[in-house]
Amino acid sequence: MLTARYLLRALRFCSSAPCPRHKPSAKLSVRDALRAQNPSGERVKVQGWIRSIRSQKEVLFLHVNDGSSLESLQVVAESSFDSRELAFGSSVEVQGQLIKSPSKRQNVELKAEKIEVIGNCDAKAFPIKYKERHPLEYMRQYPHLRCRTNVLSSILRVRSEATAAIHSFFKDSGFVHIHTPIITSNDCEGAGELFQVEVMEELFKATTVTVLSNCPEDVELCHKFIAPGQKDRLEHMLKNNFLIISYTEAVEILKQASQNFTFTPEWGIDLQTEHEKYLLKHCGNIPVFIINYPLALKPFYMRDNEDGPQHTVAAVDLLVPGVGELFGGSLREERYHVLEQRLARLGLKEAYQWYLDLRQFGSVPHGGFGMGFERYLQCILGVENIKDVIPFPRFTHSCLL
Amino acid sequence: MLTARYLLRALRFCSSAPCPRHKPSAKLSVRDALRAQNPSGERVKVQGWIRSIRSQKEVLFLHVNDGSSLESLQVVAESSFDSRELAFGSSVEVQGQLIKSPSKRQNVELKAEKIEVIGNCDAKAFPIKYKERHPLEYMRQYPHLRCRTNVLSSILRVRSEATAAIHSFFKDSGFVHIHTPIITSNDCEGAGELFQVEVMEELFKATTVTVLSNCPEDVELCHKFIAPGQKDRLEHMLKNNFLIISYTEAVEILKQASQNFTFTPEWGIDLQTEHEKYLLKHCGNIPVFIINYPLALKPFYMRDNEDGPQHTVAAVDLLVPGVGELFGGSLREERYHVLEQRLARLGLKEAYQWYLDLRQFGSVPHGGFGMGFERYLQCILGVENIKDVIPFPRFTHSCLL
Repeated sequence: MLTARYLLRALRFCSSAPCPRHKPSAKLSVRDALRAQNPSGERVKVQGWIRSIRSQKEVLFLHVNDGSSLESLQVVAESSFDSRELAFGSSVEVQGQLIKSPSKRQNVELKAEKIEVIGNCDAKAFPIKYKERHPLEYMRQYPHLRCRTNVLSSILRVRSEATAAIHSFFKDSGFVHIHTPIITSNDCEGAGELFQVEVMEELFKATTVTVLSNCPEDVELCHKFIAPGQKDRLEHMLKNNFLIISYTEAVEILKQASQNFTFTPEWGIDLQTEHEKYLLKHCGNIPVFIINYPLALKPFYMRDNEDGPQHTVAAVDLLVPGVGELFGGSLREERYHVLEQRLARLGLKEAYQWYLDLRQFGSVPHGGFGMGFERYLQCILGVENIKDVIPFPRFTHSCLL
Repeated sequence: MLTARYLLRALRFCSSAPCPRHKPSAKLSVRDALRAQNPSGERVKVQGWIRSIRSQKEVLFLHVNDGSSLESLQVVAESSFDSRELAFGSSVEVQGQLIKSPSKRQNVELKAEKIEVIGNCDAKAFPIKYKERHPLEYMRQYPHLRCRTNVLSSILRVRSEATAAIHSFFKDSGFVHIHTPIITSNDCEGAGELFQVEVMEELFKATTVTVLSNCPEDVELCHKFIAPGQKDRLEHMLKNNFLIISYTEAVEILKQASQNFTFTPEWGIDLQTEHEKYLLKHCGNIPVFIINYPLALKPFYMRDNEDGPQHTVAAVDLLVPGVGELFGGSLREERYHVLEQRLARLGLKEAYQWYLDLRQFGSVPHGGFGMGFERYLQCILGVENIKDVIPFPRFTHSCLL
C-alpha cells in the first residue's frame, strides 16, 4: 500500500519531467526501500541515522536506519563523500539510485549521489557506542535515546503490531472499544499483583500469530536477547501466561451498551461479555480460569472458590455474595436492602449508588478479565524485565521523562 | 465474519444432534440476528433489554436491544407469555425461531418459544422513561445508565469505529503506534485551548468515510439530534475543523525510532513525522496549517509566524529559536552553550538534559500536530456538547464515577 503511494507520488513527479536527471527524488522509508522489487536505478531519497560506516580505498559503505525496520539500508558511495561528519549516530539524507545489490547479503542498496548530514553526533558523549552491545540495564538510564538501538526499536514495532492485533481481534469478535477515564493508581485494585491464568487461547493465539507474521525479525531479535539458560523460561511463559487482573467500573457500566473492551496499557485489556453463566470456563469465546492468586488480595470483585487443590477465583463481587448464583441478575428486594445497609455501614452508599442502580434496573450477568499488555509482550518476546517493554517505565523512585 | 462464526458454532451443535427439537440454540447478538439473510426458522437465543412492549389480544410484540446495533430486534410471542415482569428496561433472554418478518418494517423477527426475564427493572425509579425523548443534559446526570439510550450507545459505537479507523489510517501510512506515559493534566500544554486548523484532509477524510460507511445509522441518529438551526453549524464544523494542539515529549523522543503516533483520548492524536522542512504546509501526508491561535498560549513549543493577515504557528520550540531554520538539525556548539545557559538560568538544566541530548546526538528536523479525538467526534456527529461524546466526562466540580 505504502509502496503504491510512493510510486504514485513518484509518477506524479515524472509526468511533467522532461529532464529526468533533475526530477525530484521520491522519499522512501528504509523499510520501503528494502522492500523494492527489482530496483533498477530509481532515484530516491532516504533519511536516517548512520548505524555503521566502513571506508575502503575507493568505496564508502554506510548503513542507514530510520526506525522503520530492523534491517538497515546499505548506502554505497564514492570515497570522495567521506568526511569527519559522516559518523556513527549522525542523521543523514541520502539521494541516489536504488539498485540491486551485487552482494548476497542484501537485495537492495542505494548508490549515493548526494549525502547531506542533517544532525551531527558527538560520538564521545553519545551513550550508545559503535559496535558495542549494550546491556538492557545500561540503556534503561537513557529512556530518551534507547529507541535508537535495535532491540528497543524492535520492541516498539512489536508493541505497535500487538496493539493493532488486539484491536482487530476484538473488533472482529463484535466487541465495542471503549475509553475509560484515566484514574489514579490508587483506584486500581492491586494492579501490580500477579495472577497466573490458564487462559485466552483465542486472544493469545490470534495476536501472537499476527505479531509473529508481521514482525518476525523483530521478535527473533528479542528472542536472541534472552540470556542463555532462560530459553526454557520463555517456553514456560508462553505456556503459563502471567496476566494481571484489572477492572474498572467503566467496563461494567458500559457493558450495558454492548459487549465491550478497553485497552490502555498499564491497565491492560479489560473486557466484559454477557450472559455466560460460567465465566470460570468461558468468558465469551475466551476460556479463562484463574489459579494460584494471592489469597489476601482484593475481596471486592473476587470470589474465592476453594473447590480443589488449587485456589480459583471468579471475577464477581462479594458485596452481594448470594445474588444470582455466580453472577448478577437483578437484586431481589430483600437483597437490595441488605446491600444498601452494608454500603451505608461502610460509608459508601452515596459513592456506590451507581452500583446499586446497575443492579436495580435490568441487571444482567456479566464478567470479564484483564490482561496485562506489557506482560503479554514479555511473554511473546522473552524480555525478562518489564521495564524494557515499556517505552517510559515508571517505578519506585524513578520517573524519568 | 461473526455470522460465519456463529453459523459454524451452530453447525457444530447440529452435527451430533439427532433430535432437532432440542438442539441448543445458537446465541446471536441483535446485530447478527438482524443481518441474517433469508432466515427460515433457525433456532436462536438472543439477549438484551426490552426497549418497547406492545400487547395485543393474541400477540405480544417486544423490541429487544443489546447495544450491538441501533435497530432493535422484534420479538413476536403469544399473549400467554405476557407478565408484569416483561417491562421496559428489563433484561431478557429469548429463545425462538428467526423468521422473515411479514411486515415491511423489518426483514427479520424472532418468534419466541421461551422468554426468560434475567433482570427486572423498577420502571418508577428508572431515570429513563418509556417512549420519552430525554434531553442530553438530563442524561448527563446518569453516566452509568445513559449508554442504554439510543443516542449514547450510537456515540459509543461511532467512537469505537473512529478509533479503529484512526489506528488503521496511521498503520497503513507507515506510522508506529506508541504509548505515552499517563501524565497529569498539569503537564499538558493548555489542552483545553482551541486552535482553528486548516488541516488534515487525509486523516479526516479517511476516518470519516470509514465511520460513515460502518455506522451510517448511528451517525444519522446523532445528526437528527442537532437542534434545528444548528445544521449550518455542523456544516461549518465539518469544513473548519477545530483541533486541539497537544504535544508530549514522548512523541518527540520516540520519533528517533520511527515516525510515530500516539492515541490517548483526552490527549488526542499526536504524531511526529520526519524531515519535512515545511510542517506549515505538510506534516507527512497531512497538510497542517494553524491559524487564529490564542496568542498568549504556550510559547514553549510554538513559533509565531506573523507573516500575513492571520497569525500562524508552527509546532517548533522557542528554547532554541535560531536552530536549523524552522526545525531542528543538531545544535552547533555555540548554540548548545547558549541553550545550556538559558536552561540553567531557568533552573531547568537537569530536567531538560534529555532535550539537550536529543539535539546533540544526530538530531533531525521534526514536527507534528495533535488532534482532539472528542472534537473530531463532535465534528462528524454534530453533537454540541463535548461531554456527550465522552463516556465519563470530567469537568470542573464534576467527576461522576
